[in-house]
Amino acid sequence: MTPPKKRIAILGSTGSIGQQTLDIVRANPDRLQVEVLTAQNNADLLIEQAIAFEPNAVVVGEEKYKYVKEALQKHDIKVFTGADALCQVVQMETVDIVLAAIVGFAGLRSTIAAIEAGKPIALANKETLVVAGALVTALAKEKGVNIYPVDSEHSAIFQCLAGEFHNKIEKIYLTASGGPFRGKDTKFLSSVTKAEALKHPNWSMGAKITIDSATMMNKGLEIIEAGWLFGLKPEQIEVIIHPQSIIHSLVQFEDGSIKAQMGLPDMKLPIQYALFYPQRIASTFKRFDFAAYPSLTFEKPDMQTFPAIQLAYEAMKKGGNLPCVLNAANEIAVGAFLNDEIRFNDIPAVVEKCMNKVNYIATPSLPDYIASDTEARKEAQSLTKKKISL
Amino acid sequence: MTPPKKRIAILGSTGSIGQQTLDIVRANPDRLQVEVLTAQNNADLLIEQAIAFEPNAVVVGEEKYKYVKEALQKHDIKVFTGADALCQVVQMETVDIVLAAIVGFAGLRSTIAAIEAGKPIALANKETLVVAGALVTALAKEKGVNIYPVDSEHSAIFQCLAGEFHNKIEKIYLTASGGPFRGKDTKFLSSVTKAEALKHPNWSMGAKITIDSATMMNKGLEIIEAGWLFGLKPEQIEVIIHPQSIIHSLVQFEDGSIKAQMGLPDMKLPIQYALFYPQRIASTFKRFDFAAYPSLTFEKPDMQTFPAIQLAYEAMKKGGNLPCVLNAANEIAVGAFLNDEIRFNDIPAVVEKCMNKVNYIATPSLPDYIASDTEARKEAQSLTKKKISL
Repeated sequence: MTPPKKRIAILGSTGSIGQQTLDIVRANPDRLQVEVLTAQNNADLLIEQAIAFEPNAVVVGEEKYKYVKEALQKHDIKVFTGADALCQVVQMETVDIVLAAIVGFAGLRSTIAAIEAGKPIALANKETLVVAGALVTALAKEKGVNIYPVDSEHSAIFQCLAGEFHNKIEKIYLTASGGPFRGKDTKFLSSVTKAEALKHPNWSMGAKITIDSATMMNKGLEIIEAGWLFGLKPEQIEVIIHPQSIIHSLVQFEDGSIKAQMGLPDMKLPIQYALFYPQRIASTFKRFDFAAYPSLTFEKPDMQTFPAIQLAYEAMKKGGNLPCVLNAANEIAVGAFLNDEIRFNDIPAVVEKCMNKVNYIATPSLPDYIASDTEARKEAQSLTKKKISL
Repeated sequence: MTPPKKRIAILGSTGSIGQQTLDIVRANPDRLQVEVLTAQNNADLLIEQAIAFEPNAVVVGEEKYKYVKEALQKHDIKVFTGADALCQVVQMETVDIVLAAIVGFAGLRSTIAAIEAGKPIALANKETLVVAGALVTALAKEKGVNIYPVDSEHSAIFQCLAGEFHNKIEKIYLTASGGPFRGKDTKFLSSVTKAEALKHPNWSMGAKITIDSATMMNKGLEIIEAGWLFGLKPEQIEVIIHPQSIIHSLVQFEDGSIKAQMGLPDMKLPIQYALFYPQRIASTFKRFDFAAYPSLTFEKPDMQTFPAIQLAYEAMKKGGNLPCVLNAANEIAVGAFLNDEIRFNDIPAVVEKCMNKVNYIATPSLPDYIASDTEARKEAQSLTKKKISL
């Protein structure tokens, strides 16, 4: 007996995760069916995807709405635009699972809308939990919604927890490649270029997350995300640098036993696992071979040179709206770095200054988060314009 | 609500595994209670253990029966001797789980008796499955008996399979330290001493298994054992040398994902896991620290220098009574080496000659196994007396 196809809404289908999700759909035509595709700006790719996968609906940014609407007029595909439309399509009865891969704070509202409608979430948008983890996890619990992590590190932890949910976690190790600037010092970082920062040694990802990997803010965000996903305190989460990116993360249980999930760096595996959990689907993904990796190495992160990790721990410990402020300030700072407005080292400096400046709120509501996000962005923008330095 | 104590029969309580099991009982007085202790020769330790843990019954080798009986006469502990007594005590209604840690072929009958009585088995005696895997697994299935592996490698695989029993295994990696002679050549091995062979770099174990680690026959036996425990073909089992003995083994699933179980080399962890599965009990076992292991390394085994692995694959492929013959010949050869009767390199040579000599039986019964075991031992003894050389 073949189970019915899972109908999937892919939020952010033209991004790196979105495209790889469509690769998985292509490889599993009997198991998956695309119900919704959404994109902000990349209209041509969205049109191409829509024609290939024939979703029920697409949602696109307002500037590209007319263009996409016209391109798809001969197809039986509804075309929408706007934040409200995004929230409505994920709630459609025909959607079985939502892959949330919109980058940044922008992904929050639609993810919350999907949880409100009881849709299981394959979560690639880490900001959802970083910014509003308390609110989102409480809502998911209330609605009985499962959140399946897509980030390779969190997927690794989640895979290690299969069959172990009754056993207490003593600690987890989040592995980090260390990015392109591992082993460098602050002086070196003060003069790195955009092109250098965009060269990740192991993973092929979008620009925002690649810069976050270079500053190690990505690991900082993952620490906060892991806290919410797995119910962990800051002191239960340790970052370990593992330059080969083969062990994707590890869980240590109360008996001292450690479980690790490993493999070649390939986001398709965690995406597929999130879509089909608890079932593993046979794949043709390239296999890991010890012959190519005779040595797996580990070192402590350099938190002096990469202060982003410390900032994230601090935000996690203090909680409230601080992770939201950290995230918003970081988004603006990374954008400013990519626009050549600030230097690499200014990114964590901007974040730290914003964390100290924006008003602390201990138990924020969703409007509070939105206000903190706005305030932090404004503050960060003013700092980046002033070209502050360390 | 406290669950009732598990009443445990420890077969081979004075050996390395038996003693470590009693350490676990000592650390968990609310969870475990010793019901049966058995030993062959080490009467003084058995008496000490019996007085400390007050089992219902002990079984000891015939030579030490009177001595133990007298020593325990003031205690409310039954003392028995003989192979039949061993089989009877494990079947007692008051036994909840049997830890099978008698070394070698001698452990087979009592393990089968325990399975026949429907007792769950924590299996440290790998010969049970190596010698008679077809018979034992069929019986366990018929009786609905779970076999929990205690060998660190098989426990690692078993731990990785928690929550994954519905997912197909693509392959497993059994890790091996490589023993004290890793990187050496055949010429070097021809002159190694007993003392050198008994120095295992990572694990503290009994003499028989330590020599088996040096010849790598231990890994060969584990390949065959893994085949029966996890329903794998020879080509699904790969041996990888990992000198640090931190990753205890790995499972690769059909989606390409690999799960590994790790930790410091300490048999107490797999013993405890087997006794309490699926629950993990908080322990004070020393924790692994990446700072002490900045590099985990891997290499292919040298099957030319260590032919035991190849012999085991061959025995597994041909099946029938060949693994039984391999095991019996190896037990005799290891004994002869420990008695300074043959050289180190003669161990696999004796095994190979016996495998070629003893009559092949495709689907042996238990009496066939016993006959093959006897025939192989006789043949191996005759070879070791002749001091054959390579």
